[in-house]
Amino acid sequence: MTHHIEFQPAGKTVEVEDGTPIIRAARRAGLYINASCGGTGVCGKCRILLESGTVAEGISEKFSPEDIAKGIRQACTAKVTENVVVRIIDASGLKKGQLGTEVPERHQAGKHTFDINEFREAGIFTPPVEKFFLELPRPDAIDHRSDASRVILAMREQYEERHIQIGLSVLRRLRRTIREDDFRITTTLARPVNNDSRSRLTHIQSGNWSKRNYGLAVDVGTTTVYGQLLDKNSGKILAEGGGYNNQISYGEDVISRMIYAEKDDGLTHMHDLVTESINEIITRLLKKQRVARDEISSITLAGNTAMTHLLLELEPHNIRRAPYVPVSNFYPPIRAVDIGLNLADHATALIYPAVSSYVGGDIVAGVMGSGMYRTEKITLFIDIGTNAEIVIGNREWLASAACSAGPAFEGGGILHGMRAAAGAIEDFSIDSETLEPMSMTIDSKPARGICGSGLLVMIADLFEAGVLDQRGRFIRDREHPRLREGRSGMEYVVVWEEESGIEQDLVLTEVDIDNFIRAKGAIYAGIQTLLTEVGLTVGDLEQVILAGGFGSYIDLDSAVTVGLLPEMDIGKMMYVGNGSLMGCRMSELSNHIRRDVVAAIQRMTGFELSEVPAYRDQYVASLFLPHTDTTLFPETERRRQARAG
Amino acid sequence: MTHHIEFQPAGKTVEVEDGTPIIRAARRAGLYINASCGGTGVCGKCRILLESGTVAEGISEKFSPEDIAKGIRQACTAKVTENVVVRIIDASGLKKGQLGTEVPERHQAGKHTFDINEFREAGIFTPPVEKFFLELPRPDAIDHRSDASRVILAMREQYEERHIQIGLSVLRRLRRTIREDDFRITTTLARPVNNDSRSRLTHIQSGNWSKRNYGLAVDVGTTTVYGQLLDKNSGKILAEGGGYNNQISYGEDVISRMIYAEKDDGLTHMHDLVTESINEIITRLLKKQRVARDEISSITLAGNTAMTHLLLELEPHNIRRAPYVPVSNFYPPIRAVDIGLNLADHATALIYPAVSSYVGGDIVAGVMGSGMYRTEKITLFIDIGTNAEIVIGNREWLASAACSAGPAFEGGGILHGMRAAAGAIEDFSIDSETLEPMSMTIDSKPARGICGSGLLVMIADLFEAGVLDQRGRFIRDREHPRLREGRSGMEYVVVWEEESGIEQDLVLTEVDIDNFIRAKGAIYAGIQTLLTEVGLTVGDLEQVILAGGFGSYIDLDSAVTVGLLPEMDIGKMMYVGNGSLMGCRMSELSNHIRRDVVAAIQRMTGFELSEVPAYRDQYVASLFLPHTDTTLFPETERRRQARAG
Repeated sequence: MTHHIEFQPAGKTVEVEDGTPIIRAARRAGLYINASCGGTGVCGKCRILLESGTVAEGISEKFSPEDIAKGIRQACTAKVTENVVVRIIDASGLKKGQLGTEVPERHQAGKHTFDINEFREAGIFTPPVEKFFLELPRPDAIDHRSDASRVILAMREQYEERHIQIGLSVLRRLRRTIREDDFRITTTLARPVNNDSRSRLTHIQSGNWSKRNYGLAVDVGTTTVYGQLLDKNSGKILAEGGGYNNQISYGEDVISRMIYAEKDDGLTHMHDLVTESINEIITRLLKKQRVARDEISSITLAGNTAMTHLLLELEPHNIRRAPYVPVSNFYPPIRAVDIGLNLADHATALIYPAVSSYVGGDIVAGVMGSGMYRTEKITLFIDIGTNAEIVIGNREWLASAACSAGPAFEGGGILHGMRAAAGAIEDFSIDSETLEPMSMTIDSKPARGICGSGLLVMIADLFEAGVLDQRGRFIRDREHPRLREGRSGMEYVVVWEEESGIEQDLVLTEVDIDNFIRAKGAIYAGIQTLLTEVGLTVGDLEQVILAGGFGSYIDLDSAVTVGLLPEMDIGKMMYVGNGSLMGCRMSELSNHIRRDVVAAIQRMTGFELSEVPAYRDQYVASLFLPHTDTTLFPETERRRQARAG
Repeated sequence: MTHHIEFQPAGKTVEVEDGTPIIRAARRAGLYINASCGGTGVCGKCRILLESGTVAEGISEKFSPEDIAKGIRQACTAKVTENVVVRIIDASGLKKGQLGTEVPERHQAGKHTFDINEFREAGIFTPPVEKFFLELPRPDAIDHRSDASRVILAMREQYEERHIQIGLSVLRRLRRTIREDDFRITTTLARPVNNDSRSRLTHIQSGNWSKRNYGLAVDVGTTTVYGQLLDKNSGKILAEGGGYNNQISYGEDVISRMIYAEKDDGLTHMHDLVTESINEIITRLLKKQRVARDEISSITLAGNTAMTHLLLELEPHNIRRAPYVPVSNFYPPIRAVDIGLNLADHATALIYPAVSSYVGGDIVAGVMGSGMYRTEKITLFIDIGTNAEIVIGNREWLASAACSAGPAFEGGGILHGMRAAAGAIEDFSIDSETLEPMSMTIDSKPARGICGSGLLVMIADLFEAGVLDQRGRFIRDREHPRLREGRSGMEYVVVWEEESGIEQDLVLTEVDIDNFIRAKGAIYAGIQTLLTEVGLTVGDLEQVILAGGFGSYIDLDSAVTVGLLPEMDIGKMMYVGNGSLMGCRMSELSNHIRRDVVAAIQRMTGFELSEVPAYRDQYVASLFLPHTDTTLFPETERRRQARAG
């Protein structure tokens, strides 16, 4: 259910979901409301007046009964329950006329989704591992075929499945199983990735079990492992859930885990930790849907190259050493039990192939999951994390590269940086006149830090409001208590100690901004360099796909304003969420996709940015807001000039 | 070294190997010498006179010094050491003029051999599992290929080997192994049977081990297991040897083992016994040649369908029950350790496929080993044992059938029947006048029984000499101490108690002869029926290949005389020895042969004789010596008439 909120005196109306706080509605409308405490109801500055309609909550103990009766509420805690007209009033010492100051609107990318019906219609809804019910003809004096031939020929006659090989373990149970329910059996068939190989019959059951046809899709992330339980008949996600990758206690980044893996038994230990994490999720998903463990016939997993090596117990030593050589980028189909997964002996594990040490199976899965591999549009696919992986191309060709952004987007190297958890400032706007902030925290908890997407919005807004210059320095010509000299240069006080969830002022320093600029510069330079390498410019891009947690939820305008993403029509940008997981799901449901993966990798050229001389120059040129070359960001420049006046 | 022996008064000369007993040379020449004790030197009747030259041994304590000085010797113990002229003298109460009576000559088939050079010249000397030495390019700033790609591409560039997949266990050791000897490695590649699949890299070693490239060929027989250690570079047999199949303590025939396999743990026990037998032989062969266990990269095994099931631990239950359905006729390549063979984890076991429950991998291997599958000649391939398997056809088409001969050829159902071991009468001739025998035993030991090939010659000779009639009954019109009424009808005393190695007369009974006739009749009827089914007659056969121990060493004339084999030019008959083992060796050395096996089976039609109505009639007609229809055996009939005079 949605409601309309009209803001006065600006005269703007937005439509929001039931339960949305007024302050977030204002932010959406591009209207500034002072909220220096982070939207937690502490500072009491975000007063509004209800002109018509009512809201839930929003009442502060600081308000008199008369104010409350008049319709005064706190914008940060008041929640929309019906259509309402709201007046933004001076409750924070602003001059008249400043009320309802316009701030930049926020734009999230539209979500790319994947519809199994498309597969069905295209005739490619053919899971790589699938169950078939067979009623076999009984042997008699004329029909002496062996049990195995009987099954193989029935698969051909009843399902047009050819070139089937039966492994020893199934052969050993074949005679008995066939006769247990009068020649009615259910087979599990594992198809080869290409038609140049044989299908394997991995499992056999007596009777008809073809309705119980389940698979798993698992994204093996450095931080979290996320899985989905899939019904391979309907294509539906029956359950999903995630948890930490237990390796995390040996270091948050992948490098420290690779180092640990070089110790005695270190590799085995890393392997055990990640499989333990996956097994925990599998157990949870199975329990939720009362699916038996041996009803899972396949699992598709994707991770970055290092993570995949640790999962398969392959030595990752040379991934982190020049010239960065993995053991393998392709992994054969294996028995899930052979990599320590707690599934039945017959379950097949399919591992997403990688492009290189730094463009892994997770990115390849994202390219598949986002549909980039089959679009005609020239697309920029980007997964932003400590490392940002960039893929440019379309159905004809693909080019990939990875650049090291550092941990700034995850809160690393930022004085008050933190993960996107409760109390993290995730949205921000500044009144360019008063320099007072409008901050919002996750779950409206007292501010404890700034998460990656909050940092992006904050720096973009400070820059656009003229509080930061192109080099990321605070302006020196304004006297304001929030702008001050700190221990490491100038800093801006985002939340005062008494309004924060920490026992100190929550600040943004110039060192933080430097670290941020280096991170965004590395990524932008990567995009530019890769574009140049393939002979294109930003203007040629017809689509941008953002993947990963950070990329999916960032404010696109801010990302362009700081020069993280190239300036282009943000209507062409979309996000895919966990693209790796989506790719795994697609592969679990369509063997054609598995085939396409190989084809996509074969047409993907990997670039090693450190070996492209132009990258360094691009990087240096990108260490500005938004860029040294402002002609690349004409609209950003125009807006900044307009707002800064 | 060979010598010439001239026999007088017959005036015949034969060429024999150094050390051949005189009596065997006489037999070869088709000359009768009384040797009623079986050629052991006991009866002292086989006296000869050396007219020129000398021999080794041959002196009996019964001889006077004068006789010895004159040149009197025992033909059974005297051995040829130089050219010699020998006179056969009356030393057994024969009438003059009977000396040097002509008896039928003996003809063994020529041996079919297999020459690896033919493979080399035909470009098909490509073992299914082979080693390759690679010098890999080192990774550098430009060459970032993964370790796996590096190996795969080097295989392509250096050896034109394509479509290679690397399994998890090799991937896990790849990084380390490649770098242990500076990017010099030896790979072991297992090729698929068809080009429609991928090759698997099963093993990797650092350094150059390509010269140590070994395989095993093993015939898994019901009675004996026989193996060869092969050098896959030269194609040579480095060592060979056999031993009993340890299952034998659970019954000599395959049926009793299948019955045992249906008990609790019976299958596992049968499996363990046969693999134990194979493992014993493997250990012996490896020791002999100082080949390390993990230097064996593959083993090819063949056996009949029941034996193959027990080896692979597949349930044989329906092989022995109508309608005789095996679990499978084709077996995937497997890890040798997965069937309990004591070889390295990486060793691949290749199992010869079967045609049906009763035409097994051993026969298919024989068809391959004998070259039948690629000859233009219309060929009869026959492996005679308790079951006789018959294949008729050529490179264009093949038809197979099996018939149950019973154990007569292995000594079963014969009062004094025994295996072909020391003391078994293996050759025999009778003087049609005196009815005195000329017997020879294996190793010239006192006679203990009659082995299959001895029985054949004995019955053929008795028949040709007119001592047996067409129905296999002894003539009743001659009074002779050796011809008498025994406990089960008439019998012929082959060796008297005092000259035998058993404490009784060694006899051949009419019941024995009946059993023999039923066995040979079943086989002849099988040949005739199969010929009729494919629209041919005996006259169309251009070649006969005899396989197996019994088939290989029988006297061809005798086999035709009794009507076991069809009457035809015996120059067209050859033997292949252990065809199953030869087929295994060929497959171990040529993947093309493996491919041809599949093609051969696909063009092989299996006939179930029990379901061909004509078979019963053919069988009844064959229960005569040689056959009811003597026009099928005109030459035999002519000779018999001539000899019986």
